[in-house]
Amino acid sequence: MKKSAILLVSCPDRKGIVATVADFLYKHNANILHADEHIDADFNLFFLRVEWDLTDFDLPRDQFVDTFNPIAKKFQMEWRVEYSQDIQKVAIFVSQELHCLEDLLYRYRSGELKCDISLIISNHSHANEYAEFSHVPFFEISHTDKVTAEEKITQLLNKNNVDLIILARYMQILSPMFVKKYSNRVINIHHSFLPAFVGARPYHQAHERGVKIIGATSHYVTESLDQGPIIEQDVIRVSHRDAVADLIQKGKDLEKIVLSRAVRWHLENKILTYANKTVIFD
Amino acid sequence: MKKSAILLVSCPDRKGIVATVADFLYKHNANILHADEHIDADFNLFFLRVEWDLTDFDLPRDQFVDTFNPIAKKFQMEWRVEYSQDIQKVAIFVSQELHCLEDLLYRYRSGELKCDISLIISNHSHANEYAEFSHVPFFEISHTDKVTAEEKITQLLNKNNVDLIILARYMQILSPMFVKKYSNRVINIHHSFLPAFVGARPYHQAHERGVKIIGATSHYVTESLDQGPIIEQDVIRVSHRDAVADLIQKGKDLEKIVLSRAVRWHLENKILTYANKTVIFD
Amino acid sequence: MKKSAILLVSCPDRKGIVATVADFLYKHNANILHADEHIDADFNLFFLRVEWDLTDFDLPRDQFVDTFNPIAKKFQMEWRVEYSQDIQKVAIFVSQELHCLEDLLYRYRSGELKCDISLIISNHSHANEYAEFSHVPFFEISHTDKVTAEEKITQLLNKNNVDLIILARYMQILSPMFVKKYSNRVINIHHSFLPAFVGARPYHQAHERGVKIIGATSHYVTESLDQGPIIEQDVIRVSHRDAVADLIQKGKDLEKIVLSRAVRWHLENKILTYANKTVIFD
Amino acid sequence: MKKSAILLVSCPDRKGIVATVADFLYKHNANILHADEHIDADFNLFFLRVEWDLTDFDLPRDQFVDTFNPIAKKFQMEWRVEYSQDIQKVAIFVSQELHCLEDLLYRYRSGELKCDISLIISNHSHANEYAEFSHVPFFEISHTDKVTAEEKITQLLNKNNVDLIILARYMQILSPMFVKKYSNRVINIHHSFLPAFVGARPYHQAHERGVKIIGATSHYVTESLDQGPIIEQDVIRVSHRDAVADLIQKGKDLEKIVLSRAVRWHLENKILTYANKTVIFD
Repeated sequence: MKKSAILLVSCPDRKGIVATVADFLYKHNANILHADEHIDADFNLFFLRVEWDLTDFDLPRDQFVDTFNPIAKKFQMEWRVEYSQDIQKVAIFVSQELHCLEDLLYRYRSGELKCDISLIISNHSHANEYAEFSHVPFFEISHTDKVTAEEKITQLLNKNNVDLIILARYMQILSPMFVKKYSNRVINIHHSFLPAFVGARPYHQAHERGVKIIGATSHYVTESLDQGPIIEQDVIRVSHRDAVADLIQKGKDLEKIVLSRAVRWHLENKILTYANKTVIFD
Repeated sequence: MKKSAILLVSCPDRKGIVATVADFLYKHNANILHADEHIDADFNLFFLRVEWDLTDFDLPRDQFVDTFNPIAKKFQMEWRVEYSQDIQKVAIFVSQELHCLEDLLYRYRSGELKCDISLIISNHSHANEYAEFSHVPFFEISHTDKVTAEEKITQLLNKNNVDLIILARYMQILSPMFVKKYSNRVINIHHSFLPAFVGARPYHQAHERGVKIIGATSHYVTESLDQGPIIEQDVIRVSHRDAVADLIQKGKDLEKIVLSRAVRWHLENKILTYANKTVIFD
Repeated sequence: MKKSAILLVSCPDRKGIVATVADFLYKHNANILHADEHIDADFNLFFLRVEWDLTDFDLPRDQFVDTFNPIAKKFQMEWRVEYSQDIQKVAIFVSQELHCLEDLLYRYRSGELKCDISLIISNHSHANEYAEFSHVPFFEISHTDKVTAEEKITQLLNKNNVDLIILARYMQILSPMFVKKYSNRVINIHHSFLPAFVGARPYHQAHERGVKIIGATSHYVTESLDQGPIIEQDVIRVSHRDAVADLIQKGKDLEKIVLSRAVRWHLENKILTYANKTVIFD
Repeated sequence: MKKSAILLVSCPDRKGIVATVADFLYKHNANILHADEHIDADFNLFFLRVEWDLTDFDLPRDQFVDTFNPIAKKFQMEWRVEYSQDIQKVAIFVSQELHCLEDLLYRYRSGELKCDISLIISNHSHANEYAEFSHVPFFEISHTDKVTAEEKITQLLNKNNVDLIILARYMQILSPMFVKKYSNRVINIHHSFLPAFVGARPYHQAHERGVKIIGATSHYVTESLDQGPIIEQDVIRVSHRDAVADLIQKGKDLEKIVLSRAVRWHLENKILTYANKTVIFD
């Protein structure tokens, strides 16, 4: 793996952005590995993700911000730079359904997810054996008292400097304050093709409605339930032969794939958000 | 094409239905071509579709009903028998978007849809040239006065003994009375993945919500807008790069396929409905 | 879970098969749960799968064969009866790629796969920790001497009365004699959309050819490499952006799903084979 | 529709390409509408497509080549510039199966395909009525004498200054010389998921092999039959219930969509080729 840096930019669209940024990188001897951009003409917004090899790059990490800031200011950029060698710290929250947790842990152990899964939090004890097998600290936190539960969770997250929270079928509602604090850093998997079937028991809702295709949706969590920016969706066919139990079974495979894609893109710094939507630079 | 008959049955599930029906057909020397059944354990309902070659069948058409009725009564069946040589009469209703109409007409001319498209009704004149090319009578009926419009339409449908109405992107609401009269005989295409994005401008809604997949849904029309039994759905991926115009363009291909499948299944007597759902015996 | 029996039949198509079988089951008071049939007009073959609740069924298990045999003879049936409470014994063979093994073991532990995974065999030691976690005996068998290896394997399979062998990315060729003995009882996952890219390194072949979609195929193993009856296939889109490593990553998710579906259908006695094809009664 | 220009570049990858091109465009006051690039690390190749609004662009069309050439030379670029207001001239070749022709003509009439369909050539007369309906000149050219046929075809193409040839289910083989002359300008639809089932009657081959998914492939035609760079593929599920006629029917919908996507991308100058592959900048 080459050591690389990733620049992520959102700003009002105007002439000269690419020329300026590309010139900046070229002058510092960057060898560009990937570059992707997007213009939303309706919002007049410009989005950029550029990744370059650090081998020949002559701008030290601690000088990047100051050196790039004049450009950022000129174009009114929201921006950040990330480094591939910075390993993000991740917390997984889970309740009784363990298929997504198990799937994430396997991808983690096999090296597909480049992160450090620092802890697993659950309101049940079932996940403990999976945590142990993958050598991840496990914390059972009851939600009988919601306020205390969130305090305990927050302490654990702070102590571990957690960058990303994954709700891997976590059946507890997080408070708006909590969600706000981790804006664009909490990924949830919802077991329906949003915006169809928000809320509880979406497979039952889907069966009741008689749909011919079911889906799963991963999204960033916002204060509005199941309304956050959608990161990824996928679907599978069902028929009149499928009972609710079959939908649940088929859906599990979707949930695992849709959640893991979202997590991977997030870890690889490929997602930008605006207007309650995502730009996926994959 | 062999001449065949199709028996469609819905009834409470109990022992002996298949044995009785199969014995009945065997005794009259039916050569079964296809048979498909379904049991909904939640509703305790049994569904059957069986198709047989008429060549050796010894029960004349005009005696079938009386001969089968004792069995039907015993098992409390809702049932009907259809004959492959009976060609259904179809009316297509269309507004300004003509892609579904054009697609249906091509499938009709090329023999994919075994029916007689008896007339095309529109609240615009645009479709006339397509009607002419396919030698189908065309009627432009304005909806400025809704009551008069529906009266004119009803007269045309009655005069032509229309069996099936296809709403091929028809942007007028039909009255509950009209819909009731043609229960399970009006197929609509809705340009979203129902139940997401009911009502007007679903592609705009989908774009606004930032979904990663769009869909189309064909369904029988009921008195509740976009709530009828779903016949078929299909989907296609979209991304942040797709503007509303791209969703519309991609969606058109879905709409054509999803509507034409529903129409073909209906014409081939492959659809049963119950509990606002469909059983598709394909 | 109801105790049920499953009758699987293949025979030349002629009048009266369904009537006779349905009558037989009805007379013995079977409550039918599912029934599915298929007629291949080209081959004049009839296929049937019927599953019934054993609660009220009055024919004891040890009398079924003798009682049904006259019917089977009359219609020249190939047939078998299976019982849902008979748990099949399964051996998984695996080499270095462990994602399919891990996926099968999770589905096994969570109750999705109703079987007894009796042993895991590998030509490497890597899988041992997964075997241990799932409490499945593990045997490392080197293939440096092919004949000895197969002898050892055969002994283990015999000792454990293995019904089904799953090649979960097993990179050793089994001898024709071995394969013949386990005809229709060895399921392999091939990491391409067969018949494209048979043999070694299919993802490299796919990348070289520049395909826009990749796939995976599960099939029964026959003496001809990658030529056995296809059970299931699935695909995913790729683009010019995907390097071989990306195809491998994306393909893994396909492989897991496509293999597990085949295994589940096999365990649920839903597969019939003929003419190097499968009928899947799902 | 804004008037725009599109620059397409392939060259060895090295530092400074983007900076140089972006600076060039910026200095001439280009307002960039879309930009997409790709780096193939294996081949050390860089690909770029950039589209800009011509409204404020200060470099006249007749000076672009000379002005840009020094940059092109410096980076050893293969390149071309295209203008959105240049309407490409298209010839469609078709035999007896008319669904792709009909589909292309509808997309043409409805404005989806921005081109001028200058002529239709067929070795049969069937397509004539479709040509007439769309006001496109039609030429029936028999292939009994292959050499004469190709001469006649070449004359027609030259006379009409044809830019792109679409083989919309054209069942005649074109000579290597002909194909070479129209390199990357002949798009064919093959009715299988290439590289599976090359050559004749692919649906029959697919049915024989018992695949569970069928596909269609659009590709540029090269001298090797069905071996040219793949532009687009799509697939659909089939089952044991599908006879060859069903595969053909299902496949037609794939063929239309897969061919039309390839044609649209070609007309929008979104395709680059290298190493018998395509880069699709969509």
